[in-house]
Amino acid sequence: MKSNIVKIAIIGSGNVAYHLAKALKQTEQNLVQIFGRNQDVLISISKELDIPVSTNKLADADLYIISVSDSSVEEVSKLIKNPNAIVAHTSGSLPKEILKGDYNKASFYPLQTFSKSKNLDYAEIPFFIEAEDKDVEAILTEVASEISRHVEVADFEKRKYIHLTAVFACNFVNHLFARAKEISDSQQISFDYFMPLIEETFDKIKSVTPKDAQTGPAVRNDKRILEAHKELIKNPEQLAIYEVMNDSIQKMYNLD
Amino acid sequence: MKSNIVKIAIIGSGNVAYHLAKALKQTEQNLVQIFGRNQDVLISISKELDIPVSTNKLADADLYIISVSDSSVEEVSKLIKNPNAIVAHTSGSLPKEILKGDYNKASFYPLQTFSKSKNLDYAEIPFFIEAEDKDVEAILTEVASEISRHVEVADFEKRKYIHLTAVFACNFVNHLFARAKEISDSQQISFDYFMPLIEETFDKIKSVTPKDAQTGPAVRNDKRILEAHKELIKNPEQLAIYEVMNDSIQKMYNLD
Repeated sequence: MKSNIVKIAIIGSGNVAYHLAKALKQTEQNLVQIFGRNQDVLISISKELDIPVSTNKLADADLYIISVSDSSVEEVSKLIKNPNAIVAHTSGSLPKEILKGDYNKASFYPLQTFSKSKNLDYAEIPFFIEAEDKDVEAILTEVASEISRHVEVADFEKRKYIHLTAVFACNFVNHLFARAKEISDSQQISFDYFMPLIEETFDKIKSVTPKDAQTGPAVRNDKRILEAHKELIKNPEQLAIYEVMNDSIQKMYNLD
Repeated sequence: MKSNIVKIAIIGSGNVAYHLAKALKQTEQNLVQIFGRNQDVLISISKELDIPVSTNKLADADLYIISVSDSSVEEVSKLIKNPNAIVAHTSGSLPKEILKGDYNKASFYPLQTFSKSKNLDYAEIPFFIEAEDKDVEAILTEVASEISRHVEVADFEKRKYIHLTAVFACNFVNHLFARAKEISDSQQISFDYFMPLIEETFDKIKSVTPKDAQTGPAVRNDKRILEAHKELIKNPEQLAIYEVMNDSIQKMYNLD
């Protein structure tokens, strides 16, 4: 089955559903419906992307992609009654067996953080595929390959570690920015001043490993500054982060 | 005194010294010498940037910029015997009083992480200036303004918080990448897959505050995933980071 004749329906109206719909549309795949609960959002997506939507009648499709919150995947999966269909969820942290129905169960996991208003280069987003058999795997790989240059098969165990890595490299990094801004705000220092530094921090790891790129007082084992910083910090969460991160840096370089 | 007639000497041959020299040269300021201990490095800088260098005779200058490791600043500052000179160090974490000599003491702090081999847009690097009086402050501000569009006066107290913020937003962020790569490497998952996600994490905070951009299991208060991740993590430093960061996220959003 060529991917452009696979009839695809997306279930969900959140950020992942929206961007998947947009990516499928841009690559001229056969997206027959977006199905969801939130009528206002669906109508707005329908207008923008020119895709049929529904809140009550799920279209007939070959592939259903479920992009809803992790806690709703199981319930939503029961809506699909077609035993020939492929049903794939987009979660990094659920097994395909969470899907409850008599059909081909699969996972179709795009590794990216999605905001509705932001344009993304879909070709660069890695997709991780899991299916019950090679035929379904091939179909999903073909659909994903229309969107992205990086498509790989990954079972649930592997997806769990991908998700965990993403939590460190994305969610925790963002939280460090939030705590950093809290510190600079407290002294009326514009956080904008730190953007070139942040950009360079990211840029560096394109050419050297993060382990080799490490700078700062902990890796220099500069005890004077480490102590002086602890004196400065008044917020207990900032202090806990400060201590754990420095300890982890020093352990990585065998400095303690 | 116009900045382009200020005779400038740089003391040091590390990454900060190199990039300052390059920035001063690019803006056609009057850089009369780079003075340092490491002859091989100095000769290579001299050849590349066409600037006089010396390891034993410090040139006569109006402004000496000391760019050496924090622990060497005091010792090096004693080399300068000219009471009319301005002597500025480039450290974010030292007071100007660390400088030991009878001259105008100052600080000239560029907020960036420097690697020798990387080209930087110097116009975007913020410079923080501190001096004993307004005249010297004006001269240093003029020199810095030739290089950068972002020059601000900041006393030692403010510089300490700037440095602390940078440790969170740069050093700790880089360490999270190092720990993230450790996790993905352990499962033979290419860390390259995470680059679009990391790029997007940075990109997001250009338009929304990091606090508003937060995603992930902690801010969703997804206890199932938080527990599952803890089961996955075998490395004690990774686990300590995981727990402290999630706790801090949940406290920031009042979820605990």
